[in-house]
Amino acid sequence: MDNSFDKRIKVGLVGGTGYTGVELLRILIQHPNVDLLVITSRKESGLRVSDLYPNLRNHISLEFSSLDSPKLMSCDIVFFATPHGVAMSQARDLLESGVKIIDLAADFRIKDVEIFEKWYKMGHSCPDILKNSEYGLVELNRSNIVKSNVIGNPGCYPTTVILGLIPLLDLAEPLIDVSDIVADCKSGVSGSGKKLEISNLFSESSDNFKAYGVSGHRHHPEIVSQIEKISGKKINLTFVPHLVPMIRGMFSTIYTKILPHALDIDFQELFVKRYKSEPFIDVMPSGSFPETRSVRSSNRLRIAIHRPNNENRLIILVIQDNLVKGAAGQAVQNMNLIFGLKETTGLDSVAILP
Amino acid sequence: MDNSFDKRIKVGLVGGTGYTGVELLRILIQHPNVDLLVITSRKESGLRVSDLYPNLRNHISLEFSSLDSPKLMSCDIVFFATPHGVAMSQARDLLESGVKIIDLAADFRIKDVEIFEKWYKMGHSCPDILKNSEYGLVELNRSNIVKSNVIGNPGCYPTTVILGLIPLLDLAEPLIDVSDIVADCKSGVSGSGKKLEISNLFSESSDNFKAYGVSGHRHHPEIVSQIEKISGKKINLTFVPHLVPMIRGMFSTIYTKILPHALDIDFQELFVKRYKSEPFIDVMPSGSFPETRSVRSSNRLRIAIHRPNNENRLIILVIQDNLVKGAAGQAVQNMNLIFGLKETTGLDSVAILP
Amino acid sequence: MDNSFDKRIKVGLVGGTGYTGVELLRILIQHPNVDLLVITSRKESGLRVSDLYPNLRNHISLEFSSLDSPKLMSCDIVFFATPHGVAMSQARDLLESGVKIIDLAADFRIKDVEIFEKWYKMGHSCPDILKNSEYGLVELNRSNIVKSNVIGNPGCYPTTVILGLIPLLDLAEPLIDVSDIVADCKSGVSGSGKKLEISNLFSESSDNFKAYGVSGHRHHPEIVSQIEKISGKKINLTFVPHLVPMIRGMFSTIYTKILPHALDIDFQELFVKRYKSEPFIDVMPSGSFPETRSVRSSNRLRIAIHRPNNENRLIILVIQDNLVKGAAGQAVQNMNLIFGLKETTGLDSVAILP
Amino acid sequence: MDNSFDKRIKVGLVGGTGYTGVELLRILIQHPNVDLLVITSRKESGLRVSDLYPNLRNHISLEFSSLDSPKLMSCDIVFFATPHGVAMSQARDLLESGVKIIDLAADFRIKDVEIFEKWYKMGHSCPDILKNSEYGLVELNRSNIVKSNVIGNPGCYPTTVILGLIPLLDLAEPLIDVSDIVADCKSGVSGSGKKLEISNLFSESSDNFKAYGVSGHRHHPEIVSQIEKISGKKINLTFVPHLVPMIRGMFSTIYTKILPHALDIDFQELFVKRYKSEPFIDVMPSGSFPETRSVRSSNRLRIAIHRPNNENRLIILVIQDNLVKGAAGQAVQNMNLIFGLKETTGLDSVAILP
Repeated sequence: MDNSFDKRIKVGLVGGTGYTGVELLRILIQHPNVDLLVITSRKESGLRVSDLYPNLRNHISLEFSSLDSPKLMSCDIVFFATPHGVAMSQARDLLESGVKIIDLAADFRIKDVEIFEKWYKMGHSCPDILKNSEYGLVELNRSNIVKSNVIGNPGCYPTTVILGLIPLLDLAEPLIDVSDIVADCKSGVSGSGKKLEISNLFSESSDNFKAYGVSGHRHHPEIVSQIEKISGKKINLTFVPHLVPMIRGMFSTIYTKILPHALDIDFQELFVKRYKSEPFIDVMPSGSFPETRSVRSSNRLRIAIHRPNNENRLIILVIQDNLVKGAAGQAVQNMNLIFGLKETTGLDSVAILP
Repeated sequence: MDNSFDKRIKVGLVGGTGYTGVELLRILIQHPNVDLLVITSRKESGLRVSDLYPNLRNHISLEFSSLDSPKLMSCDIVFFATPHGVAMSQARDLLESGVKIIDLAADFRIKDVEIFEKWYKMGHSCPDILKNSEYGLVELNRSNIVKSNVIGNPGCYPTTVILGLIPLLDLAEPLIDVSDIVADCKSGVSGSGKKLEISNLFSESSDNFKAYGVSGHRHHPEIVSQIEKISGKKINLTFVPHLVPMIRGMFSTIYTKILPHALDIDFQELFVKRYKSEPFIDVMPSGSFPETRSVRSSNRLRIAIHRPNNENRLIILVIQDNLVKGAAGQAVQNMNLIFGLKETTGLDSVAILP
Repeated sequence: MDNSFDKRIKVGLVGGTGYTGVELLRILIQHPNVDLLVITSRKESGLRVSDLYPNLRNHISLEFSSLDSPKLMSCDIVFFATPHGVAMSQARDLLESGVKIIDLAADFRIKDVEIFEKWYKMGHSCPDILKNSEYGLVELNRSNIVKSNVIGNPGCYPTTVILGLIPLLDLAEPLIDVSDIVADCKSGVSGSGKKLEISNLFSESSDNFKAYGVSGHRHHPEIVSQIEKISGKKINLTFVPHLVPMIRGMFSTIYTKILPHALDIDFQELFVKRYKSEPFIDVMPSGSFPETRSVRSSNRLRIAIHRPNNENRLIILVIQDNLVKGAAGQAVQNMNLIFGLKETTGLDSVAILP
Repeated sequence: MDNSFDKRIKVGLVGGTGYTGVELLRILIQHPNVDLLVITSRKESGLRVSDLYPNLRNHISLEFSSLDSPKLMSCDIVFFATPHGVAMSQARDLLESGVKIIDLAADFRIKDVEIFEKWYKMGHSCPDILKNSEYGLVELNRSNIVKSNVIGNPGCYPTTVILGLIPLLDLAEPLIDVSDIVADCKSGVSGSGKKLEISNLFSESSDNFKAYGVSGHRHHPEIVSQIEKISGKKINLTFVPHLVPMIRGMFSTIYTKILPHALDIDFQELFVKRYKSEPFIDVMPSGSFPETRSVRSSNRLRIAIHRPNNENRLIILVIQDNLVKGAAGQAVQNMNLIFGLKETTGLDSVAILP
């Protein structure tokens, strides 16, 4: 492992105008080992990045380049903060030039092409690359990520739900009834991106709360495929996402049922043990109430478990900043891992509170 | 039924300084049959009501009276918007003077004195009155309320959860597994009252989301006692309340499992039928996503049911304004019922949106 | 004056999909003398109004009609809640059919065609009608409005600034230096309408504050033309609008300088006297701090004047709900006046607080 | 100048429980040269700091010490994030032990004891120390701060107003009419601290806007004394603070009048020149609209100047994060200066957006 500033990583960013993009920029600009070479944008080519994002004034002098900028080919790694489908269209050329890829969209999240195509309504243009890609949930898949050239960065909801369930499932026998899991998830508005949709307007989403996607959300198959892989069992998961009138933050309340054989387990100890070496996972003391603001702008994810009246219901509360651990921060965590840096490099800042 | 303006009701309000109190004032001031005689306050006696609540300027000229104002005795009905324990201490005197009572706190919500005393940490000073009181959920208990002198106005969470479950439970056989109900509930900040607590500060609760009370919330026994009564079964309910950074609004996501014998039922039709005569219950079209803002300042409660993939999981979404249908509006609905007015009198205003 | 419910007014609404439109609907639906005949929309023709605005469910059964609905011609009055330029294009036909018009956009706000065309970048298609129209600020122009067929409903900012200055200017000699007026104005986000613009997104405007339009805002010439007419003097006004992260509400801080001859005037008394018969203007006690929430959803406008250290600086604080007194409420106030109803009919509800 | 990590500064913090305190902790924890020795709190002595502030979990292991902790005496510097009056009561002992002091309250902001005592309603216990203290506005007073042992860290409003006016006043002749300055200032709610006051509650301050302190705010004499010193003239300043429903952020709109002799000056150039060496002052391009979110969590302050129609009115827009440049960040900037570090050390992080 090497964190000396001498180790330089040449980084490109495709699609730097959305919220995931600007968050990646914020992190990459402050990363001690990164040289940011190029940021592309279809629409904003030629514009100074700091004119679009005034928080970056005095921190970055780059302009947005056009999508086909040759500089991408001279990078060590390129992040895609683009709509679904873009990364797979540019992946082959980059890989052939020896450039590694981390896609923050869904192109490399779901191994089963049929499932991908059903949910994302598009053909997959490079199933061979998909096959060799890795799911970028470091805490689950570290040993494979480190050797990979193509990373599918996890969705925001899946990050919370999977990390909330791992300690209960990656065992010879699951400790909970896998046919009866409910994930009631809540996201800040930035989770739906910088999209011009009526429901994203301040006057529509402020002072309001609602559910959406009950009949089917794209993160559902992503979660299911991962936890089925972990547990080796067929999973039945009910997943309902909700929209919270806050900019950042994600909160998942996961309801599980402890199986009879596991009723005497000390679940607090189980979680603490499972994550004790993970720098970004904070298992809070038993009975804690994590608040999303405690991780605002941070790559940390906090978990608290509750077992009311010591009965068979186990409730797992998981929080993260959807733009950091749920997107840009996790992507940089993957990069650090791949390039042999300490995993927390550039990612250890304290959350902003209040 | 009589809505002529000639029918006058003399109304008193004990404790008009909290959010439930000011909301009662807003509704009562605009109620065509109400003469507001007296508003008491321990702390603000002598202050003009409109000096505390500038939205009431030009609408009300009363001052706060002291708690023992004799005017209370000349009212037809007195509302208590006070902390738990106040209504029961004043109930006997009022009843003996022929004054009816609606308590917006918990003194008359739970029939079982032991359970009340366990959860509210106080003795019950008038178990005999409690015995003759009625639970003021009109849609459940109309025929008893109309004859009653003492109403325990339901808690805000219970209103949503009970109304969301009634059509599934008030049958010879329940349609869902009563041993496996999850109510994941979310409330705006006004639900915790006008209390000087750190967690109620803007800088603490804005741009933040959290759960609380997982290990036990006072509304849990209230919900359970009512739905056990409805269903005639022992119920196992998991109830987790959360705090949303908005002023008003409550959203309950209720997860149930359809029993094998009920899999072919048309649940949409079931709900529509059950509530078709209820002026304040709006069963939305199948697959709808109710938003809390659609009932802001209104006494309406909306329900939408979802059954993903037509499997055995039935999800009920319920919304209300916690200060109206969840408190002050429901209280006035009870008053209308008791005094033979049309139930919607003074309660049929359109929700404020945006 | 006649408020019996027998008096029926047939009302049409052109453009009911924006925030001003839905607010008009909320008020008109609850207005005791109004029969809402038709609501048109270019984009939503055929859609049920309550499908677009769920707060109107159970209150309205109309569908949006196409723009050229013949029903408009059988109305007594038609409101235009449309972009600038629409009302003037339909005005002549309606007037010839005997239909009165209230335009909530700017087509009939500015008498000087040149100034209109300069600021609104469009030709004026009916200068003759403009000439005979009236500026719909009731408190300023009541005697003319009552006889008029075409009303230009004031802009939101102008409503606050003009009403804040009238008592100082509608005199033989102004009491303040008319060459030195600063209006520092703040508006909730709904003021910019239901527009798909990046700056209107929740994630852009929440937890943020900014100014805009310093170099020139269309409300500037509107304010200036009115206060020049009132005072008979050339005015120099500096006007800076700002955006506040709240849905509704407008706050104007107006800085003026008292002229030497007026230093001994009791300004509090002056304001109280000027507005004592105005049902919607609330001059608060000296030294008060009005809050926008005290008029949320109400047609009331509150004024408080401050004179620090009794020197020559006079500061006028003015608040309103931008969608009510600043738009839809004021429009209905004009309608009431024109049709001989009590001015407060359908407009006297209590503001929602908290 | 020396930024090597070898240079260690032993730091103490008195009063670490308020918002200024937790923000200081956030910055100090991440400062490469700081060893945080002790944090005191009257109320929370013995509590782990990270139990009060969960964003600090995994970053700090200290507990709050009692106020008289002897560790304070072994520090190089102690910050006071306490109510007014605390720093002056502990100053002499610390100074005699060779400990430097930065007070984030007002004890050392106003040189004139009489004015201090009038506005802060308390006697000043160490006028001699006050006399030798320095006003910690680095951009104004750098050469004196560097030699000082006692710093009065500026108030949040004064920081914006003074920095917005310096280029116009620190000249042989002021360029603006010093008898006619208006500062219309707006602050996020965190500016009023973590205080249990009704007006700080979410349900009171959310979705609301108001002015306060028109008749006199303690920051008024602070601003006036500084800009009188800068300009050598008697100043007449009208200052009106307002409360914005956002957590962090401050926006000042300053209205000035250009004197006749200065009408031809290029004010944009003037500001750019004056601040070109200042790492934390960003003079934006002419006509820009700074947004408070562009400095959220950052020590940067942005200025934009506007001159509508090129007339004699000059408007200066100034933004900052009230908790950073307006408090904790500026305090650390002072510390860096005093200890010979690069001024931006530990203060150059990118603002969080969105």
